[in-house]
Amino acid sequence: MSTTTTLPLYRQLAAHYRGAIEAGSLQPGARLPSLRSLMQLHDVSLSTALQLCRTLESDGWAEARERSGYFVRRPQRLGMAPMDEPDADVQPDPAQYVGIHSRVSDFVARRRAADVKLNLSIARAAPQFYPADALRAAMTRALRLHPELVAGVPPLRGDPQFRTVLAKRAVAAGMVLSPDEVLVTNGCIEALNLALRAVAQPGDTIAVESPTFYGLLQVLESLGLRALEIPTSPQTGLSIEALELAARTYGDIKAVVVVPHLQNPLGSVMPDAHKQRLVQLCDAQGIALIEDDTYTELLDAEQPPRAIKSWDATGNVIHCASMHKILAPGLRLGWISAGRWQARVEMLKYTQSRNNEVLSQRGAGEFMATGAYDRHLRRLRTALRSQRERTAEAIAKYFPEGTRLNLPPGGLQLWVELPAGCASAQVFDAALQQGILVAPGFLFSNSARSDHFLRLNCGWPYDAEIDGALRTLGGIAGQVARAA
Amino acid sequence: MSTTTTLPLYRQLAAHYRGAIEAGSLQPGARLPSLRSLMQLHDVSLSTALQLCRTLESDGWAEARERSGYFVRRPQRLGMAPMDEPDADVQPDPAQYVGIHSRVSDFVARRRAADVKLNLSIARAAPQFYPADALRAAMTRALRLHPELVAGVPPLRGDPQFRTVLAKRAVAAGMVLSPDEVLVTNGCIEALNLALRAVAQPGDTIAVESPTFYGLLQVLESLGLRALEIPTSPQTGLSIEALELAARTYGDIKAVVVVPHLQNPLGSVMPDAHKQRLVQLCDAQGIALIEDDTYTELLDAEQPPRAIKSWDATGNVIHCASMHKILAPGLRLGWISAGRWQARVEMLKYTQSRNNEVLSQRGAGEFMATGAYDRHLRRLRTALRSQRERTAEAIAKYFPEGTRLNLPPGGLQLWVELPAGCASAQVFDAALQQGILVAPGFLFSNSARSDHFLRLNCGWPYDAEIDGALRTLGGIAGQVARAA
Repeated sequence: MSTTTTLPLYRQLAAHYRGAIEAGSLQPGARLPSLRSLMQLHDVSLSTALQLCRTLESDGWAEARERSGYFVRRPQRLGMAPMDEPDADVQPDPAQYVGIHSRVSDFVARRRAADVKLNLSIARAAPQFYPADALRAAMTRALRLHPELVAGVPPLRGDPQFRTVLAKRAVAAGMVLSPDEVLVTNGCIEALNLALRAVAQPGDTIAVESPTFYGLLQVLESLGLRALEIPTSPQTGLSIEALELAARTYGDIKAVVVVPHLQNPLGSVMPDAHKQRLVQLCDAQGIALIEDDTYTELLDAEQPPRAIKSWDATGNVIHCASMHKILAPGLRLGWISAGRWQARVEMLKYTQSRNNEVLSQRGAGEFMATGAYDRHLRRLRTALRSQRERTAEAIAKYFPEGTRLNLPPGGLQLWVELPAGCASAQVFDAALQQGILVAPGFLFSNSARSDHFLRLNCGWPYDAEIDGALRTLGGIAGQVARAA
Repeated sequence: MSTTTTLPLYRQLAAHYRGAIEAGSLQPGARLPSLRSLMQLHDVSLSTALQLCRTLESDGWAEARERSGYFVRRPQRLGMAPMDEPDADVQPDPAQYVGIHSRVSDFVARRRAADVKLNLSIARAAPQFYPADALRAAMTRALRLHPELVAGVPPLRGDPQFRTVLAKRAVAAGMVLSPDEVLVTNGCIEALNLALRAVAQPGDTIAVESPTFYGLLQVLESLGLRALEIPTSPQTGLSIEALELAARTYGDIKAVVVVPHLQNPLGSVMPDAHKQRLVQLCDAQGIALIEDDTYTELLDAEQPPRAIKSWDATGNVIHCASMHKILAPGLRLGWISAGRWQARVEMLKYTQSRNNEVLSQRGAGEFMATGAYDRHLRRLRTALRSQRERTAEAIAKYFPEGTRLNLPPGGLQLWVELPAGCASAQVFDAALQQGILVAPGFLFSNSARSDHFLRLNCGWPYDAEIDGALRTLGGIAGQVARAA
């Protein structure tokens, strides 16, 4: 996929009609202009007019009626019930040592034993959505021009050019960082390890969102830390009230790890006011605030929202981010800016894995300094939005009554609430027998609260295979729900 | 530097004459054949004959006498006293939490503040000694042929091709590993972190060689582990008797970390019998045995000696290694094979930094599968040997009476014992004022035992600048020694 062009014409026109429907200018049931009218109106070919209508149809905004043309329709997904908001004034469970390794190992072992035809358990876009050609060209150029990349020792903190680009882009999210305050890591996961090792000792309590991604629970478990699960809204993210209550109840929370934008798995986005309150609360309580910024660039927005770090006046916020999901899954590029723990984090990074190799940083930095990077992000967001919506449409169509869903404003995945009592473990098992791999909810929390949820990847182009798998999954969920 | 040619003719001839001198066929004081005779004898040009004599001279095996030709001489370095062997039956100091970070931070801060002209503190060969061109070509090819390297997710455990090459080469060191028992890491330092995290908990005691490289002490400190320093011979490495005594005295040693070949900083090499006894002792005492194999390929030997892991019948030996010093300092390639802890190490690696990027593995694996890799290693060893010997010769010439030195049979560095009472901290300070950076002994132990030692890098081509710096260093050491 080229990353240098803008959206194709039929997609621009589809967005226009979709806007009209969302605004109410076109009501459900109304007839769309005929193909001939569309050709004249927009001065386009028959093929473009047809693609426009089919796009509206596949996105759920129109339906074809035989010999009558296309009619406006309300997507079924919009009729699904949203999830409940969490009770913020319920006491959180006491912090516990995680126990997630055995569950993940079990998950991995079952996956390996099965014949997986379709993997919906990941959180990643298809390879063709990433600018591999441009990155390969930049890396090839760097190899030609810079022999020292191979035989010289990688620079402290990471490649200066790459750090400069990262610092510059951080400005758009409200952060003022010098390139020397940016430390390049092996992905966001290493950044999170370093952040937690910098602020906490084994046995300490770390507050996390509930549900949260199992990668974080694994990190906590492997570092001997306790997880205190804080209720989290599917819409607005971590409940500040609940964190306040937990701090009052349990005291001595060493840090809180938050994904402010497109939380994994919820897809929630924290309002700015919440981020500000969180910064103040953590400052006041002496809780280190660790911000995981992996998904922000996948928000359906031209401008990124402000990072939590942008309100940090005391150095109490540790910002962690990654290029893994947004630029290139094959490159292990993350970074950290650790406020008042920067020196300790640098020491831990050096002690844990030394400085990162330069080549991929150079390639990424070069690409990210050009307009092609933003064009790539726009295309990726557009594709993901359509894929999320079509997946949601299929869930609305195929899943049993009582299934709930919040459509997140961006990202790679959907978090699906099955009817109460419909155990995701059973759905997981039955789906795996059909070659379909999903991420069952029990991986995302130590409590039983997520047991009837599934996380589904939307990173691949929606096609008949995916549609068929979602139909199968819906059928399985229905059976499990009826048996429950 | 090309890596595909063998040694130049004059070097081959120099090795021949050197052999004759070492064997006693040519005695010190004997006249070497004239240039004319050498030309006839070996059917070489005048220039080659001259280079031969100059090489013998610069390596310390001959001296030119005006109008009389070249005469055999015994290198001065061979007259230096060797270091004392450690007392194996002296009780080791109790294990302690390390305290090395502050010393290293101080060292780094002073280095940054100074105007360093010559850095002898590192342990690394000059960039021109590494096969950068061949590696760049291999990586460029991989980028062209494998777009998935950028946009696809890196494979579990590392690139299969690279792991296959590593497993194959391990056979020469007596290890039988399947490629799936090889896990690629970010350098040996990550491998050591994983090994220690797999076998020990914060607060546990780890036995280490004394002296040892400060990188290891930093890892122990950052993981909250205690270091129990075991006396180590400058010739035969870790004292097994001393470890036995320590195990009897202190009990509960969780692991021992050993560099069997070219120990850093000593340059010692463990005899096979010691390695075997160590394996037995650790098995019997339930001490995990962590082998750091970073330097083996830099031994002056065509065949690598047997790895400790090669005697491992119970899975108790964790083998860690790295390409950093021997193939490419710019690539962060290490690996680990963790015996019965393999599954736990894999989990910790995944949790700490996920899978490594593939590109550098692909490039290294491709190069290492060819004969060019062994040719590169031979050339590197030859160059390092000459550089070590010339550095030792300069130490013999310039350093004060009472300086002691063991010439290691390979590697990148020399460990120099200054006269008793000559504090390396003072030498370090005075040298830094002259722009010369050395690694002072106090970085290599928690005890004061290494305080009058220096570690000097021999990785750069010996030239007038290095010679001048060693002369300056010798002068400084002399002043400090006299004042002591």
